[in-house]
Amino acid sequence: MGRRVIADDVVKGILAGYDPEKVVIAAYCSHSSLQIFHGAKREGFRTLGIHERRKDVRYYDAFPAAKPDEFFPMDSITDILDRQDELIEKNVILIPHGSLVEYLKVPNFEKLRLPTFGNKAVLAWESDRSAQREWLVGGGLLMPMEVKDPRDIDRPVLCKQGGAKGGRGFFIAKSHSDWVKAISEGDLKAEDYTTIQEYILGTRYYLHFFYTPLRDDGFRVGEGRLELMSMDRRDETNIDEMYKLGSQTELKDMDIYPSFVVTGNIPLVIRESLLPKVFQMGEGVVNKSIELFGGMVGSFCLETVITDKLDFFTFEISARIVAGTNPYPTGSPYAAYMEDNISTGQRIAREIKEAIRMGALESILS
Amino acid sequence: MGRRVIADDVVKGILAGYDPEKVVIAAYCSHSSLQIFHGAKREGFRTLGIHERRKDVRYYDAFPAAKPDEFFPMDSITDILDRQDELIEKNVILIPHGSLVEYLKVPNFEKLRLPTFGNKAVLAWESDRSAQREWLVGGGLLMPMEVKDPRDIDRPVLCKQGGAKGGRGFFIAKSHSDWVKAISEGDLKAEDYTTIQEYILGTRYYLHFFYTPLRDDGFRVGEGRLELMSMDRRDETNIDEMYKLGSQTELKDMDIYPSFVVTGNIPLVIRESLLPKVFQMGEGVVNKSIELFGGMVGSFCLETVITDKLDFFTFEISARIVAGTNPYPTGSPYAAYMEDNISTGQRIAREIKEAIRMGALESILS
Amino acid sequence: MGRRVIADDVVKGILAGYDPEKVVIAAYCSHSSLQIFHGAKREGFRTLGIHERRKDVRYYDAFPAAKPDEFFPMDSITDILDRQDELIEKNVILIPHGSLVEYLKVPNFEKLRLPTFGNKAVLAWESDRSAQREWLVGGGLLMPMEVKDPRDIDRPVLCKQGGAKGGRGFFIAKSHSDWVKAISEGDLKAEDYTTIQEYILGTRYYLHFFYTPLRDDGFRVGEGRLELMSMDRRDETNIDEMYKLGSQTELKDMDIYPSFVVTGNIPLVIRESLLPKVFQMGEGVVNKSIELFGGMVGSFCLETVITDKLDFFTFEISARIVAGTNPYPTGSPYAAYMEDNISTGQRIAREIKEAIRMGALESILS
Repeated sequence: MGRRVIADDVVKGILAGYDPEKVVIAAYCSHSSLQIFHGAKREGFRTLGIHERRKDVRYYDAFPAAKPDEFFPMDSITDILDRQDELIEKNVILIPHGSLVEYLKVPNFEKLRLPTFGNKAVLAWESDRSAQREWLVGGGLLMPMEVKDPRDIDRPVLCKQGGAKGGRGFFIAKSHSDWVKAISEGDLKAEDYTTIQEYILGTRYYLHFFYTPLRDDGFRVGEGRLELMSMDRRDETNIDEMYKLGSQTELKDMDIYPSFVVTGNIPLVIRESLLPKVFQMGEGVVNKSIELFGGMVGSFCLETVITDKLDFFTFEISARIVAGTNPYPTGSPYAAYMEDNISTGQRIAREIKEAIRMGALESILS
Repeated sequence: MGRRVIADDVVKGILAGYDPEKVVIAAYCSHSSLQIFHGAKREGFRTLGIHERRKDVRYYDAFPAAKPDEFFPMDSITDILDRQDELIEKNVILIPHGSLVEYLKVPNFEKLRLPTFGNKAVLAWESDRSAQREWLVGGGLLMPMEVKDPRDIDRPVLCKQGGAKGGRGFFIAKSHSDWVKAISEGDLKAEDYTTIQEYILGTRYYLHFFYTPLRDDGFRVGEGRLELMSMDRRDETNIDEMYKLGSQTELKDMDIYPSFVVTGNIPLVIRESLLPKVFQMGEGVVNKSIELFGGMVGSFCLETVITDKLDFFTFEISARIVAGTNPYPTGSPYAAYMEDNISTGQRIAREIKEAIRMGALESILS
Repeated sequence: MGRRVIADDVVKGILAGYDPEKVVIAAYCSHSSLQIFHGAKREGFRTLGIHERRKDVRYYDAFPAAKPDEFFPMDSITDILDRQDELIEKNVILIPHGSLVEYLKVPNFEKLRLPTFGNKAVLAWESDRSAQREWLVGGGLLMPMEVKDPRDIDRPVLCKQGGAKGGRGFFIAKSHSDWVKAISEGDLKAEDYTTIQEYILGTRYYLHFFYTPLRDDGFRVGEGRLELMSMDRRDETNIDEMYKLGSQTELKDMDIYPSFVVTGNIPLVIRESLLPKVFQMGEGVVNKSIELFGGMVGSFCLETVITDKLDFFTFEISARIVAGTNPYPTGSPYAAYMEDNISTGQRIAREIKEAIRMGALESILS
């Protein structure tokens, strides 16, 4: 049985024209790009940094081992659609991350012909909340309950705006009247809040997986293998340290409200007895992705909360490299137990190198 | 003067029959077993994973550098008592950890003839709370006050059930009436709460030591040397993030109560000016252990809180490898300053290797 | 154009007498001295530990790779002034850190003739709060508002005593009456509280920079280059875990008040999209330091809070190695992207080695 192909005919045609000796790894200059470039350089690739002209990219000067060999400035990130041929001419493979997808927007990203790491078909299942729920629950995961109508809020809920906004504008409500107050006092638009999700109390673990269709040794799932690269916890301003000032009730009187804007990441490990569940979750998600849309490929992250019954609730999936891998440019407490203690960025580059060697780029790019 | 021997005649007899070239390092498949196997493999040992048949051990497939060479499935962990001869025939040395002791139960563990890393005599002093207090306070450590009678609760206390339950069922009370309410509302059994301990407010540091009787260079204690391998802080659900929802008083109205179930570990370092105290505590505990029961050997952990007077209060000792060492499979900020930057798992394997070389297994196994 | 010289004639004269082959790196035995000695040893230097006789320095015995080659005991740290000639005779270069400056006191430190890493002229701008504000705000940084008169407290403020006391005695007030209560109930002296600073709600990042005048490749600032070595978050007792016991209002009734005593450090990384701002801040501070007093050299730390608008507020600068670099003795997630993944301690030693090679010690010592 042959390996599954995720590239469509257009991308296949483009790949057919690539010189495998001259592949260039590209990323949008933000999010986890230092790690992506660093990993690609370590694997011997030439690198290219895509950025908007107005953005300050001088910080790469401080990191010579992670500075792209070449910059590709644009007026706006959406110009990438019109300038794909320039990148294709350079034999570019694009490594997407959350900021690229957010700024480029999903429909534009899906339109790219430029060979891109991972399966673009995941976007339809990831960016629509009910499709995502069908996928994850279908894969056997527990998810926080969704509340369709704010009038039904009868327990703590987290109210989120659509789109990955880094947590800005999120708020917690414990009742419908909390909701009404938050919307009116915060001068917010109720219709922006596309997600009202049960607030699951527990500790948060962001689990960084890698799924490769190129190998079937190791932890086998589908025709490929599942790896656990690392995990982290996100730092969120101002919710994380708000308690130092007083209770939320007290702070409301000073017009101070909780917010959930991500500012960084803390390394951690999980209790070993929870690893079987961690892998079962990763396995369920991959298997269901194969069934639904031909399968995810490469990095993905399950964003979970563990309750005091030791149940995992997944509140989100991210189907590409997450910034939570940034604490680990030279390996992690989990990668240490693999063949080689490398970062997710380097793991991606190695996957591409392996696919080139095997003539299997069509199975990992789309 | 000869080196102290901790093995009894039965274990000595078994060790006499071992082929030192063919020693196998075994651990129960949970807790810190990835680290133990990884360390043993790095030191060149063959490894064996003991597990219960119903437990899912596929996760080792994802970690080839930490996967045991052989599995030893049982119906129940207590079967190990009947099947010791099989393990002895394989030249097995068992590395115990908290989950093994918890599931096997102390009296069963103490009955093992199978050569086991560390001094089993510690169990009597570790598992009985008043004996533990005698040991630690005798070693010069401060401990939180114990409250014998719930009616005497006159300050914040932590109420714990007997046995290492990962924090499940712990609660905080500030008065006798709090206690009464918690017991009745939580439908708990008062008699399960064998420990009512003063709640010491501060930052928690779990200090991971290693004591070797095989060397007397370095930080000398007794006839051996004390090492500080690393430290961590435990993640506990739901207490850690509970404040994000509201004050505990508010949450009680929603039937949400704090719990203290450990889910993982965060790496950290301590202020260098506190290291002299850290070593004095380790020294006091080791010296007193020699006096009381012939001495601990190998890994142990002091679980401490530091108050704003910079006093350390120790609320527990664990006399073997703790899961808090899991963030450090390739070394730690403290191991970096030693001869070699290795994990506690590898340190244990190296100790066994050294003892084999010196013909001194009787001094580190029991 | 020549390189800027920061050594005065006295120090220049002393350096002229030094044998560059026999330079000894010295530090006061506390704070980050393990890291400093470890780094110096790795770079091939001989090391010397300065300490007060009554302090227990046995902990170095546990860390052979970080133990100074020689100890230099004194009755009191201030004796260093009278014993400088002994140290000068040994070709000593002193690496200062926060504890040294705190215990020796600023005027004594400024009087030292002993060649010291970094520019002593920074002290006048760092130790005086209004001078510090002129410097940092002049460098383009946002700082929390200062309240001159406690009667003007109209929002959450942090009240700090003068001098680096590790946070002891700090308190939060939300109004003038809070202030009055805290002072009277805590039996504190109002006049000790030299700083009343707006409490900025957010996540805290302690940014560890290194500025070298010896290289102009990389991220160029002035005639030299700016590096970002690592970052951390401080652990503070009892404020960090206080919420577990109840709200601050509830705890006041039990005579429990928040305190901010530093006990350790947690490693972390920042969102990559914030790095341009991080470097702009470092750049602004260095440029302004050149303008004001001839420039900082070597390690410095910006202590910042990030609000949910993603604005950085800097509440303090520390113009030398901070203890927050201690989680990283073998490198950090940022150093990994440089030429070499080394600690700040080793980076300092390498700077001195480079300056010796170039004959440029006068540009990095004062």
